[in-house]
Amino acid sequence: MSTNLKGIGASAGIAIAKAYRLEEPELKIEQKTVTDKDAEKSRFEAAIATSKSELEKIKEHANRELGADKAEIFAAHLLVLSDPELLSPVKDKIETDGVNAESAMKETADMFVSMFESMDNEYMKERAADIRDVTKRVIAHLLGVQIPNPSLISEEVVIIAEDLTPSDTAQLNRQFVKGFTTDIGGRTSHSAIMARSMEIPAVVGTKQATSSIENGVMVIVDGLDGDVIINPSSDVIAQYEEKKAKFEAQKAEWAKLVNEPTISKDGQHVELAANIGTPDDVKGVLENGGEGVGLYRTEFLYMGRDQLPTEEEQYDAYKTVLERMGDKPVVVRTLDIGGDKELPYLHLPKEMNPFLGFRAIRLCLEEQDIFRTQLRALLRASSYGNLKIMFPMIATLSEFREAKAILLEEKEKLVASGVQVSDSIEIGIMVEIPSTAVMASQFAKEVDFFSIGTNDLIQYTMAADRMNERVSYLYQPYSPAILRLVSMVIEAAHKEGKWAGMCGEMAGDPIAIPLLLGLGLDEFSMSATSILPARTQIKGLSKEQAQSIKETVLSMDTTEEVIAFVKETFQIN
Amino acid sequence: MSTNLKGIGASAGIAIAKAYRLEEPELKIEQKTVTDKDAEKSRFEAAIATSKSELEKIKEHANRELGADKAEIFAAHLLVLSDPELLSPVKDKIETDGVNAESAMKETADMFVSMFESMDNEYMKERAADIRDVTKRVIAHLLGVQIPNPSLISEEVVIIAEDLTPSDTAQLNRQFVKGFTTDIGGRTSHSAIMARSMEIPAVVGTKQATSSIENGVMVIVDGLDGDVIINPSSDVIAQYEEKKAKFEAQKAEWAKLVNEPTISKDGQHVELAANIGTPDDVKGVLENGGEGVGLYRTEFLYMGRDQLPTEEEQYDAYKTVLERMGDKPVVVRTLDIGGDKELPYLHLPKEMNPFLGFRAIRLCLEEQDIFRTQLRALLRASSYGNLKIMFPMIATLSEFREAKAILLEEKEKLVASGVQVSDSIEIGIMVEIPSTAVMASQFAKEVDFFSIGTNDLIQYTMAADRMNERVSYLYQPYSPAILRLVSMVIEAAHKEGKWAGMCGEMAGDPIAIPLLLGLGLDEFSMSATSILPARTQIKGLSKEQAQSIKETVLSMDTTEEVIAFVKETFQIN
Repeated sequence: MSTNLKGIGASAGIAIAKAYRLEEPELKIEQKTVTDKDAEKSRFEAAIATSKSELEKIKEHANRELGADKAEIFAAHLLVLSDPELLSPVKDKIETDGVNAESAMKETADMFVSMFESMDNEYMKERAADIRDVTKRVIAHLLGVQIPNPSLISEEVVIIAEDLTPSDTAQLNRQFVKGFTTDIGGRTSHSAIMARSMEIPAVVGTKQATSSIENGVMVIVDGLDGDVIINPSSDVIAQYEEKKAKFEAQKAEWAKLVNEPTISKDGQHVELAANIGTPDDVKGVLENGGEGVGLYRTEFLYMGRDQLPTEEEQYDAYKTVLERMGDKPVVVRTLDIGGDKELPYLHLPKEMNPFLGFRAIRLCLEEQDIFRTQLRALLRASSYGNLKIMFPMIATLSEFREAKAILLEEKEKLVASGVQVSDSIEIGIMVEIPSTAVMASQFAKEVDFFSIGTNDLIQYTMAADRMNERVSYLYQPYSPAILRLVSMVIEAAHKEGKWAGMCGEMAGDPIAIPLLLGLGLDEFSMSATSILPARTQIKGLSKEQAQSIKETVLSMDTTEEVIAFVKETFQIN
Repeated sequence: MSTNLKGIGASAGIAIAKAYRLEEPELKIEQKTVTDKDAEKSRFEAAIATSKSELEKIKEHANRELGADKAEIFAAHLLVLSDPELLSPVKDKIETDGVNAESAMKETADMFVSMFESMDNEYMKERAADIRDVTKRVIAHLLGVQIPNPSLISEEVVIIAEDLTPSDTAQLNRQFVKGFTTDIGGRTSHSAIMARSMEIPAVVGTKQATSSIENGVMVIVDGLDGDVIINPSSDVIAQYEEKKAKFEAQKAEWAKLVNEPTISKDGQHVELAANIGTPDDVKGVLENGGEGVGLYRTEFLYMGRDQLPTEEEQYDAYKTVLERMGDKPVVVRTLDIGGDKELPYLHLPKEMNPFLGFRAIRLCLEEQDIFRTQLRALLRASSYGNLKIMFPMIATLSEFREAKAILLEEKEKLVASGVQVSDSIEIGIMVEIPSTAVMASQFAKEVDFFSIGTNDLIQYTMAADRMNERVSYLYQPYSPAILRLVSMVIEAAHKEGKWAGMCGEMAGDPIAIPLLLGLGLDEFSMSATSILPARTQIKGLSKEQAQSIKETVLSMDTTEEVIAFVKETFQIN
């Protein structure tokens, strides 16, 4: 008898293989009194050192297998292990209470974990997961217990786990691990992100994978529909083999379009670009047929370290991306830090509403040293490719004018000192604040392009924190309100002969694509793996037909109406 | 020689009198070891009890002198004195550390105060001020020290203080206290709000009032321009006497318009209404010539207590307001709780971005018992006056439809059980979320009216927390983006034959008034004391002229341009 579990399809594809339970070793911590407190502290420090050196190795492995972007998480873990806020209380407990290191570590970590977890916020919960992951490693070393080593797996399996920690995932060997399923997690948990980046089918959040699946039984993981089938009959296996073959065939079809432009059925071209975080991501962009980089998030250069990157470090990164992309456009977004993206070394004050706070261009216009260093690095790299610069979180024309003036000032200084700077750098803005969408007609006269950042635009327009589960029903990309703003922005751009792109998650969404094509969007920037499916979809669409429904959609009342209408009109399931 | 201090004009008017330094007694707290811990805890409990009974008396005094709304703060203080989170640690310290009550109290309070103060947020800082105020009283009792008693003042004075605590302000006798000035505080601190409500001229935030002003010297407090003149020459006094006389004369002029409608120079009527918080506020509305209540904030019924108000309590409050307002319209906003307005007894989870969180209608649609109780109380009261109901924080048509359906359901049930319910209750919404302004054309078909809530609309449209000082430069009521949205809402309403009002602070602002008149706003709802100045201003304006500049203003680039243009066109200083 087969049993089915329902979860969240976190990474597309189908895996059929034997179950391999990745079980956490039980870490039995007993509180003991220690007499030689100094020796105990040394033992603690040794465990930290060993953990660090292991994490360094895992980080290198991840860097090689998954790219620098994904390896960043281990830089964050290494930082946790250097954080005096976590380590000092442990040593204090050893000293003051005379307890053993493992119980002091556990007690301290539990306090931080429960503090972060009590916040109703996805980001903070991930921080709790980080601390838990790192602490487990340290305690295992203190207890002399072996931590599981998924890299030893040597036959084809589907991994079953309560959750996969980043360190687990980074050790997976794609040759043998065909898929995985977990009890907990959502589409944005680390395990899900890693699965997509490794292109391993995954279903997360099944609630009962570990309680229902025994070692060695046959399991099907359907990452397309979020299903897990345990102990399937041969008929069911055959059915999924067919579904898998169909998916593989579709991927092969997509692959044929790698070097083709993106042309609609009626011959209209749009540009499909990719969002990247590091120079290493360029490989994936080119392999997936990206016509450009629509959003280079420069934050990664600043994260997982303890001081600002130098101008040289930045210059190297920007130059590498521009060179690797050749003639293709690269839109670089200047530093978007603050809000939920903190840089501990900047010591920004805690804010009541960080999403409505001191971040991105607001911070850059005040901390001009940081901003000017980045701009110089960009300007110096500009002669190596097709650079476009955009400013994030612009709310008023005054802010844009100020940012642009600083950029031109730095350019002039560089040119005066003999540095080669491209003369054709386009300067644009992210449209992610409602005021800017509403004022697009005025902005269009002064910017070279718009890039609509839907993730933020939606949350501000609906006044709903996209990370807050209690109001997540209001995060509605297809809401007529959002579509009206998007339309307003595109029309304003075209009226002034400028182009409008989009770099939020919406740009790669099959339901949004016909709508955006109809609204006249010029550039769609998405995760690299979405480009080929999007190109396939657009090749089957008539832009004229998409345009013909524009007014109908913009005068609809609700999101539900829009979705139903688009699905029917364009036959999307 | 006279000296001038510059501060923030917190309450209009001019006071000229001798300085009276309201000095805090020095509370010298020494940490002592106590042997009889139980006796020490009893001593602590006695001090709490005495403080509570004093606060009860001050609360009654404030209720009589200032209205229930302002007295709420003492209900909050009384809650602080019943809060186990504050009191238990004190008793624990006495028990565990064997220290005296005053040092245990001080240490605990300091911890809470520094925690709240470290948050870069006006609201939390006010909470810190509350705890400091309450703690001081308790410690004074423990030390047997007299706390200042401003109610004993018996000659005309201007009060000089570092800050005025709510309990200080509530004891002021308007007959003798002509004005005050403080070192700290802003326009929204308690002392400022109380000063406006008592109509005492005040300048806050001078930084050095207490260090510059000696007891008994002559002082001028100019609450109009935020100036404090110490030891003025007779010429300067004469000059300010004249300014004061002019202001008084202007107030007398305003008073003549109490019973007049609000008619522009070219004969167009608009409605000037007031924002209220409690039934006691109705008196001020009528005294100031309000043509209606444009916003009845029902939150006060729910705050400063430890459980939800009953249907009867609510019914009594709504009925009282409706009866006192007679035929005049009363727009009641249903519960807008959550965000920065917490109700401890609802135990809402802490949110990362409370302004973008689970609040107002979002909470009411989920916690329907709370919502339905309020709606029943409103419906039952509806036959006693001219009731209009509006829902706060509506972001989508689906939310409005759901809220309205619940209202109609409760109405039907009441009617079926024989209760009299008015048949002409208009049902409207607050427009304070950008999506709703953008979708106004669709909403206008289904609502009876709009009331634009600018405080929130501005902060969401600009993506800037209005309580966060680092981004307060983005809180721009005259930004062309805001004016475009306001215009969109008014046009949409008129197209469907509905009316549009505004109940944010902007509605009473002299620069905004000509703009809003030109955009066609039908109802302006403001604090009661702003109504007569606004009526005076509108009598001097031509609506036709105001309308003629609409397109010019809506196509401007920046806030600065708008302000300069309006000031020049309508000769506003």
